[in-house]
Amino acid sequence: MTNYHTLTQAEAVEYAQGIEDLFPDGAQLKLRDIGDGNLNHVFHISDQASGRSLILKQALPYFKMVGESVPLTLDRVRIEYEALRINGEICPDQTPKVYAYEPDLALIAMEDLSDHTVMRRRLMEKVRDPLFAEHIGSFLARTLFFTSDLAMDQQEKKLRVKSFINPELCNITEDLILYAPFTKSRMNIVEPHIRDSVERIWEDKELHLEVTLLREKFLTKAEALLHGDLHTDNIFIKPDSTKVIDREFAFYGPIGFDIGTLIGNMLLNYSGQEGWSTDAKERTNYRRYLLDSVYELWTQFESEFRELWNGYAADRLVKTPGYQNLYVTRLLQDTIGFAGVLMLCRVYGYIHVADIDDIKDAAARERAQRNALEIGVALIKRNRSAHSIKEVLDIALKVV
Amino acid sequence: MTNYHTLTQAEAVEYAQGIEDLFPDGAQLKLRDIGDGNLNHVFHISDQASGRSLILKQALPYFKMVGESVPLTLDRVRIEYEALRINGEICPDQTPKVYAYEPDLALIAMEDLSDHTVMRRRLMEKVRDPLFAEHIGSFLARTLFFTSDLAMDQQEKKLRVKSFINPELCNITEDLILYAPFTKSRMNIVEPHIRDSVERIWEDKELHLEVTLLREKFLTKAEALLHGDLHTDNIFIKPDSTKVIDREFAFYGPIGFDIGTLIGNMLLNYSGQEGWSTDAKERTNYRRYLLDSVYELWTQFESEFRELWNGYAADRLVKTPGYQNLYVTRLLQDTIGFAGVLMLCRVYGYIHVADIDDIKDAAARERAQRNALEIGVALIKRNRSAHSIKEVLDIALKVV
Repeated sequence: MTNYHTLTQAEAVEYAQGIEDLFPDGAQLKLRDIGDGNLNHVFHISDQASGRSLILKQALPYFKMVGESVPLTLDRVRIEYEALRINGEICPDQTPKVYAYEPDLALIAMEDLSDHTVMRRRLMEKVRDPLFAEHIGSFLARTLFFTSDLAMDQQEKKLRVKSFINPELCNITEDLILYAPFTKSRMNIVEPHIRDSVERIWEDKELHLEVTLLREKFLTKAEALLHGDLHTDNIFIKPDSTKVIDREFAFYGPIGFDIGTLIGNMLLNYSGQEGWSTDAKERTNYRRYLLDSVYELWTQFESEFRELWNGYAADRLVKTPGYQNLYVTRLLQDTIGFAGVLMLCRVYGYIHVADIDDIKDAAARERAQRNALEIGVALIKRNRSAHSIKEVLDIALKVV
Repeated sequence: MTNYHTLTQAEAVEYAQGIEDLFPDGAQLKLRDIGDGNLNHVFHISDQASGRSLILKQALPYFKMVGESVPLTLDRVRIEYEALRINGEICPDQTPKVYAYEPDLALIAMEDLSDHTVMRRRLMEKVRDPLFAEHIGSFLARTLFFTSDLAMDQQEKKLRVKSFINPELCNITEDLILYAPFTKSRMNIVEPHIRDSVERIWEDKELHLEVTLLREKFLTKAEALLHGDLHTDNIFIKPDSTKVIDREFAFYGPIGFDIGTLIGNMLLNYSGQEGWSTDAKERTNYRRYLLDSVYELWTQFESEFRELWNGYAADRLVKTPGYQNLYVTRLLQDTIGFAGVLMLCRVYGYIHVADIDDIKDAAARERAQRNALEIGVALIKRNRSAHSIKEVLDIALKVV
């Protein structure tokens, strides 16, 4: 990575102009800086005349965390590129197109999704997306099945595990999601009014046991190539299209982590509805929509995963009667456990979610936080015994 | 590996002479070719005058299997060297000393263990080794604990997983141990007189389910740095010393596979006692010794593993009450399951064991084979419910 330097805006435009078959010669490109600047520079580059555009994402060699700049490997861009390439083959409809990749510059040029909206925003605005559950359930089934030992040549899969060893990014998840929230750590950001609930979580040894078992799976179980960070800011939606962005956390891990991250995020919005409508009926209706979406998401995932299994199992042993049922039940249990962990860490861990934090009214925000903590704890405690996605709905409905 | 060539005997002697601080200048070195020639050249090189000696092990770029030469990566020597280095630090008493390593030649010069005897021979000769269980139980506890997420920095562990991705050698295990024995495969070598029992195994779907679950663990669970091939030909013993050789199968896998491989081999000898003594009392006594050794091996492993855990746990969550008990019970269950699988594949799979195959009397050999199959099947079927090592002893005693 000796040739690495962060691109100036002029260089970014020049680079975009040089990508073959994208912009017309001599196009007047316009650049907009849309990155968060914590991890990456992200530029939107467009040509009004032709209506063409792209996103340039350049990784920064550090990560701004706890006010400090922590060095962070640029290898994550190779990982993102490889994951986009693999998922693009398996699931082209949900994967942004890649136009160019420059390893030396830690740079990827990819499809502009400006006509889509971030899913978290859509949920906060109570939009209903009838195709979301089908699209993402299918994305999960296909990307996870086809990268697992169930479908792959088992020796090629090992080389892929090697190529996606991703210690620094996994470390962020292991620290901020799977460790700090269960200890009195300075990595937690706890609003004083919910301190009592958080203290109870810190003291709940039964809960810690479940989290430790889930963490063990995250640390050891190389089941499939995960997205690794599938929250609702990483899904872009318009009515007829659903795209999944941001693959730098990709690694071989337990399938339930991806599904659980997403369901946990949907239930955070469910918990946060307290703050987004004063109309009780409207709240109830949208909550019902969210639970229906969770149910459909899982159901779409499960039925497509089973269908792929029946059609593309790697060998005869995979088809042993009873194995698929045990496997899918375990995936459900992992999903439920990780969903619960995700909910807790996003309420009082280092990174929160807008669905709850943006609620201005302190009493409503507190209710939302307590809802999320109650649902999260119940999900984690149910993880080893669950047998149906309906149990998730029941847990949520019992709390709100 | 462009400089690789197989050493002539003269080159081997010259190389040995050049190793610093080993042989006196001008020593008259004597070479003995002791390799099997299927996978490696192994030379014993010694100087009678000084009494010094060493082993030179050079990997061959192929593997003779099913009468053919299958290409096999020389990278396995790097893996063996790295595993010897890591285990040598953790467990110097059970690890042969390494004098030199030549990556280009796929060559390791290591400690001569000619004053030790192969454990399989010792068992076949009914020798009792009172220190074996303690030595190897401790070796397993230390090498497996200290390379796991329980003890290691979890990011360093990931780099180690990467360095020990070992597709070609794992493939041998996956094919010959975890797949072919459960299908009508040409990779099995079935003596006609036990064909009926083997056919029953090929049709036993309940058994296949358990094997498939165990295989899933082998394929996905990066728990600790395993030896990967810990049978009784890879343990060298003299009364006061126990050494573990041959690390080329090393990879990150489920801890129970190593312990199970060894216990399975001990129970193959137990099953084979039919052929090694006409004195019923002698047979019974040695069988009792073997079961006592299995019990002590597990007990030593478990108590030392727990002690290391209590002293060296990587973080606070690992110390969560109840976690250690669940973890150790799972290790026992995996051990029992893999022990059973090992027993079956060594009776009618591609690679057999001398403890049974060398029994000249066909009726006694058949009894030995049927004993092993019966114990193996029972162990596999017990794998998910077992809670005590005593269950292994009970299963063995019920059969013979």
